[in-house]
Amino acid sequence: MAAPAKPTRIGLAGLAVMGQNLALNIAEKGFPISVYNRTTSKVDETVERAKKEGNLPLYGFHNPESFVQSIQKPRVVIMLVKAGSPVDATIKTLSAYLEKGDCIIDGGNEWYENTERRQKAMAELGLLYLGMGVSGGEEGARNGPSLMPGGSFEAYKYIEDILLKVAAQVPDSGPCVTYIGKGGSGNFVKMVHNGIEYGDMQLIAEAYDVLKSVGKLSNEELRIVFSEWNKGELLSFLIEITADIFGIKDDKGDGYLVDKVLDKTGMKGTGKWTVQQAADLSVAAPTIAASLDGRFLSGLKEERVETAKVFKEGGFGDILTDQMVDKQKLIDDVRQALYASKICSYAQGMNLIRAKSVEKGWDLKLGELARIWKGGCIIRAIFLDRIKRAYDRNPDLANLLVDPEFAKEIMERQSAWRRVVCLAINAGISTPGMSTSLAYFDTYRRERLPANLVQAQRDYFGAHTYERIDMEGSFHTEWFKIAKQSKI
Amino acid sequence: MAAPAKPTRIGLAGLAVMGQNLALNIAEKGFPISVYNRTTSKVDETVERAKKEGNLPLYGFHNPESFVQSIQKPRVVIMLVKAGSPVDATIKTLSAYLEKGDCIIDGGNEWYENTERRQKAMAELGLLYLGMGVSGGEEGARNGPSLMPGGSFEAYKYIEDILLKVAAQVPDSGPCVTYIGKGGSGNFVKMVHNGIEYGDMQLIAEAYDVLKSVGKLSNEELRIVFSEWNKGELLSFLIEITADIFGIKDDKGDGYLVDKVLDKTGMKGTGKWTVQQAADLSVAAPTIAASLDGRFLSGLKEERVETAKVFKEGGFGDILTDQMVDKQKLIDDVRQALYASKICSYAQGMNLIRAKSVEKGWDLKLGELARIWKGGCIIRAIFLDRIKRAYDRNPDLANLLVDPEFAKEIMERQSAWRRVVCLAINAGISTPGMSTSLAYFDTYRRERLPANLVQAQRDYFGAHTYERIDMEGSFHTEWFKIAKQSKI
Repeated sequence: MAAPAKPTRIGLAGLAVMGQNLALNIAEKGFPISVYNRTTSKVDETVERAKKEGNLPLYGFHNPESFVQSIQKPRVVIMLVKAGSPVDATIKTLSAYLEKGDCIIDGGNEWYENTERRQKAMAELGLLYLGMGVSGGEEGARNGPSLMPGGSFEAYKYIEDILLKVAAQVPDSGPCVTYIGKGGSGNFVKMVHNGIEYGDMQLIAEAYDVLKSVGKLSNEELRIVFSEWNKGELLSFLIEITADIFGIKDDKGDGYLVDKVLDKTGMKGTGKWTVQQAADLSVAAPTIAASLDGRFLSGLKEERVETAKVFKEGGFGDILTDQMVDKQKLIDDVRQALYASKICSYAQGMNLIRAKSVEKGWDLKLGELARIWKGGCIIRAIFLDRIKRAYDRNPDLANLLVDPEFAKEIMERQSAWRRVVCLAINAGISTPGMSTSLAYFDTYRRERLPANLVQAQRDYFGAHTYERIDMEGSFHTEWFKIAKQSKI
Repeated sequence: MAAPAKPTRIGLAGLAVMGQNLALNIAEKGFPISVYNRTTSKVDETVERAKKEGNLPLYGFHNPESFVQSIQKPRVVIMLVKAGSPVDATIKTLSAYLEKGDCIIDGGNEWYENTERRQKAMAELGLLYLGMGVSGGEEGARNGPSLMPGGSFEAYKYIEDILLKVAAQVPDSGPCVTYIGKGGSGNFVKMVHNGIEYGDMQLIAEAYDVLKSVGKLSNEELRIVFSEWNKGELLSFLIEITADIFGIKDDKGDGYLVDKVLDKTGMKGTGKWTVQQAADLSVAAPTIAASLDGRFLSGLKEERVETAKVFKEGGFGDILTDQMVDKQKLIDDVRQALYASKICSYAQGMNLIRAKSVEKGWDLKLGELARIWKGGCIIRAIFLDRIKRAYDRNPDLANLLVDPEFAKEIMERQSAWRRVVCLAINAGISTPGMSTSLAYFDTYRRERLPANLVQAQRDYFGAHTYERIDMEGSFHTEWFKIAKQSKI
């Protein structure tokens, strides 16, 4: 393999598809890069691609020592390996050759606490460390991802020029990268990004379900609907690819491919972590949780087939004849329900990030996060502009729902939203994401909840005490004794 | 203080209200007991109570050494102290005086992994250890709790005679205690019990909300409704105390006390753990999660007051005039919706326990758990008989929903269930627990979910592959390329 004439600017270890693509992206932007992978065939493959894709300045190494030594000092190596122990193994390999002041960047979907643990261990060796969320899938990595680097600010500054060029570029908004904050904040923000992504996908799937099962739309009609939606307030990568999906014919048989795909959804952990962190931080995130549950229940395909037999006569689907559903109105209603639910989902995600930021003292800028998600990543959408504006107007906004612009949009859409959820309920179709979003909205906008009863129960059986609406203090009542006396 | 003439049968350390009551209960059943507390005034208080409540054989100690030495060998000490570090501190104090073969029992709401860690540490000292869930609040502890001991079977056998007498006694069903299983299984089962308790309380609060806000029932009417419900399928401790609560007048002002209680609900951690464990084990538990979110959102009282102002004109409540609601029909519908939702909540909890049992090899008996919850504990209910019967019929039941008896009950109630949720949605009242339970049911009973779209999206942007409904294997499609070609 050709050796670089002079030290390269940066290194990348871990050449699965994401790593290959990110390395090629960096090289293409004019930064000579060294690459390494334990399985050496991946190195050769990447070098080959670099040649084909325009003789990019990319140099492959089969040996970790020569890989590290080929990089200019202070050295920066991005790792793109599986989260968990493979990261530790790669760090061990690399750090044997790295010197004080060098830096390792983990670009995987790592649990933020692992990043913080490694930051500390690296600091003891005099090495810098970043945990950098990378979103955009294969395509984003190659052509411009959204990057969420967190950890050593000094290390960020070393490579800021590279990141600014490599990240997705959004007109009037800049490159989709910013220094997120200290510690594991880059990983945490990426984790919540993924949780929000789960929510978006679930809500789109529900829209599809209602339109197909109740509205009886064909795939071609669905393609047209989603293409239309992609011109308005819902304009986004996920809506765009959904339209694409409905247009694709099955190459192994008749009809459309989407109808042949098994209804079983995989997952990789970040959605689960998001839900667990929400619980930990006392933040309600039911839309994201519903999307996780949707994946769990999708996995029980065999059980569902059996259960469907038990409750065959249970649905109300049959009573909803075609005549009862005005197709055009349904499409319009579903669009509004999807949009309103999406606001709730993002409100939950943003509040989760803020709660963690407060806990950890990260001082995260929510508006800036919305900005760097506008391009490159899976949840990129015109919608994020609105979120950015909401936080520009008021950085301390308690909840996106009460931003004047969002509040207005929800008010305008709530009738359609309620109609869609009730229609689905009566059709025996579940829309867990939309209905839980609506419940979130209706709970959050209520001055008085029935939680007084729950607290009275807790005081009744556990002497947990309660507060009153009309006076300060903590109270306990002998409910049982009083009730017993009155029964005599 | 009077010293025991001969060694006592058992010891109890930690004399807050639960500890005091459990100690008195044990003494009352004829087992001489030694008690100890770091703050010695609590010891004297307990001794005083034992005297007053019938000269019970209870002996107080101000010193841990003499406390331990007063107990017959092999010694058993139950701790009832706050979970976490106070447990470790108490263990440290006690184990200094305990001898090989002695046993410590933690009766608190401890995280099961802490119990497993301590079991190992105790084993190294030759000591036995149990983590025992105790449910029933103050009253249960005094007069008969539900007990969920897990850990050393040998230790369980030492004190089985005591536990069988001390636990709640249910006619035709026996004492509410059984050996749960190894490791931290006793704590885990108690944790899920509490999660189910959260769900029950949330569902009851929603029933209250719909009846009060939509049905305009007065507190006196509510008292009568809940009293009636407590004679039928909903017969349970929580329904009973709810009826009691509606009957209690405010002693500090006019009207009923429940209306003066602030709508802010506290919590202690077990509900949170339940939700986090469900995510960890890939078990959908949305009803329990909704109850946790309900508590989180109840805590944002000040925010809700502000948000209510923003969305003042948002609700549909005003269009639902009294004429539109048939009160008697509403009450009947709400009862059915509550019952059907409760089945879903318990199905989730039981499946969570089973998933953990499989993971840990605990071999837990779900029907037996339903049996020991029939008395003593907060969720005690006639309903648990049905669960026991369902698992007696089929110990491998995939989900309570598909048990023939429950399936029939749900079928009969689903119309009412759908009516209540839609009514609430149109009234702008949130019923997150009921609506998420319904979505759980409608998702679980569907042969084909829209998860095919989600999986197609994942394959589109992340090459995550998919399965097909019509052939074996794992597939990947170049969705983007195909869509691009067709657009040209």
